[in-house]
Amino acid sequence: MQKVKINELREFAVQALIKNGVSAKNAEVTADTLITTDMFGVMTHGIRNLGQYIEKINAGGLDAKAEPEVICEGPAFAVINGNKALGMVSGCKAMNLAIEKAKQVGIAYVGVKNSCHFGAAGYYANLAAEQGMIGLSMSNTDPVIAVPNGASKAIGTNPFSFACPTGDGKSIFLDIALSSVAALKVIMAKEKGMDIPDTWLVDEEGQPTTDSSLFPQNASLQPMGAHKGYGLAVLVEILSAVITGAGMLSEIASWNLDMSSVNNAGHAFVAIDIKQMMSEEVFNKRISQMINELKNGPKAKGKDEIFLPGEMEWAKREEALKTGMLEITDAMAESLKSLSESTNIELNIIK
Amino acid sequence: MQKVKINELREFAVQALIKNGVSAKNAEVTADTLITTDMFGVMTHGIRNLGQYIEKINAGGLDAKAEPEVICEGPAFAVINGNKALGMVSGCKAMNLAIEKAKQVGIAYVGVKNSCHFGAAGYYANLAAEQGMIGLSMSNTDPVIAVPNGASKAIGTNPFSFACPTGDGKSIFLDIALSSVAALKVIMAKEKGMDIPDTWLVDEEGQPTTDSSLFPQNASLQPMGAHKGYGLAVLVEILSAVITGAGMLSEIASWNLDMSSVNNAGHAFVAIDIKQMMSEEVFNKRISQMINELKNGPKAKGKDEIFLPGEMEWAKREEALKTGMLEITDAMAESLKSLSESTNIELNIIK
Repeated sequence: MQKVKINELREFAVQALIKNGVSAKNAEVTADTLITTDMFGVMTHGIRNLGQYIEKINAGGLDAKAEPEVICEGPAFAVINGNKALGMVSGCKAMNLAIEKAKQVGIAYVGVKNSCHFGAAGYYANLAAEQGMIGLSMSNTDPVIAVPNGASKAIGTNPFSFACPTGDGKSIFLDIALSSVAALKVIMAKEKGMDIPDTWLVDEEGQPTTDSSLFPQNASLQPMGAHKGYGLAVLVEILSAVITGAGMLSEIASWNLDMSSVNNAGHAFVAIDIKQMMSEEVFNKRISQMINELKNGPKAKGKDEIFLPGEMEWAKREEALKTGMLEITDAMAESLKSLSESTNIELNIIK
Repeated sequence: MQKVKINELREFAVQALIKNGVSAKNAEVTADTLITTDMFGVMTHGIRNLGQYIEKINAGGLDAKAEPEVICEGPAFAVINGNKALGMVSGCKAMNLAIEKAKQVGIAYVGVKNSCHFGAAGYYANLAAEQGMIGLSMSNTDPVIAVPNGASKAIGTNPFSFACPTGDGKSIFLDIALSSVAALKVIMAKEKGMDIPDTWLVDEEGQPTTDSSLFPQNASLQPMGAHKGYGLAVLVEILSAVITGAGMLSEIASWNLDMSSVNNAGHAFVAIDIKQMMSEEVFNKRISQMINELKNGPKAKGKDEIFLPGEMEWAKREEALKTGMLEITDAMAESLKSLSESTNIELNIIK
């Protein structure tokens, strides 16, 4: 592992985006989304993708100068056309609008079309939690899951996230793909030549397989909990794409394998303003009661602690904030070094 | 299997409820909820529980005469105190209010406290779909799932449902418990003395077990997809109970094992009015495109058809409507016969 100072990495990301045509404001928003995700330990969805976002800008699949715009709205909803802007830019604008509207009427939905990979869904849900609201955040993606009775990549992993404030600055939050496991876990098994459980993939005949080498060309991910994950993925597709006008199912190409194509993914965000339903004091007491009961329950043999959803991620974030440093893999260090060279912006990576 | 005419069963349910103090209006609402659920083939959550609801009324755990009331509201939200009314009565009132509010502002949330078992979550989601809206419906329940690293029943199965119109009168809909399997499946294996997969239960030390005989006394259900189902169950607990003022976690007793206790379960309903975001014509075209792509995808070996979420349930409902008859198990026939005797209301069961 190598290391980088978080503030320097943030500034590097901002400058790299600005140099590639993104406005200062949108570069800040994008850098914060990616670096916060890294601090939560979700390194697959953070700054490691920065080089690819910039590559996609230069290939024409993203418009660095685009500003997302509201195309229809009412007191409790809006739909935004991302106009091919970075997914992080449209995502933040949409969740912030949902928060504003929820402040007025209690709950709001904002959908986005014509967007792209937005990083980690959890970042947006947490924007609502920071405002004392419950946040939901989701996106459709290019198809990679086989549906029950199916034999091909039919629907995306369609990430789903929620966050809920707890009164102590940290949220309860969940950020999951609706496949039984992340594609990356299959790829890692493949690289090590390892077999996998038969609940991860189906082969080209739709049969469960333990052969990781088939993925991704000749196998598809299984949905989480069979028909349950399938159904939830359909819900995310409806809320993110069907009712926003975004690309649906096979209309979405891989955002980073097909760099010149416009991705047209859709997202959906919901904010719920808790304090219109009960006072902050009452809510904090109630959420603490739930937390204490969950955490103080009997532990499984050999386990010392029950964790809340998101608790381990918050521990990582606090550690990162305390040290001001982010540990990065050698591969990520390589990718940042190469971006530093191509953009001619310095970044100090500590071995 | 025995049979009963749907219209006669509905009238029987209405009369049995009225005879036990429920108003004609609320008896109609309750009977429709239960019988529609049976017609969808979800017999575990339908009329077979009628006798138990009535028993709970007579034991004091439900108030037959109660009317749920709105205790706080805004343009896009409300919280309802169920006042110990039947869960079906509060559930229908809440979803209908969410639908009304969504018609005004685009999306609405209605939470319910001081309620009880509301039958199948899917019924309420479908009320929204019948109005051209997307409906979400959920409830907390008495704890029966062990959370990751835990060794006891810590959180409910917390059913979650959504429904989405498709333009042809039938909805896409999902209605799932957040456990890896339904408790009833474990009970059935136990009755047959069969072992079960090690992903269904954990024992009192929090270890996966294949011994179905341990349930329910000495084992807990596993959440769907481990931490994923756990996180989703926490979301349902927050939306249904934490922000409504309902009982949380261990505060909920089993609704049908503890008849004299007030259950105090909470529910949450969301309605989203699609036509404020796009015309009905555009939506119908888009949802049809999604449906066609999913259904026409390559099939797994030996499978003829890919089903939409809810499609098999709709086939059963159409069959029931066509014949006007409901097939019922011998056990359910016995329970209805006994209710017929205790209420002195006739019901014609056809052998």
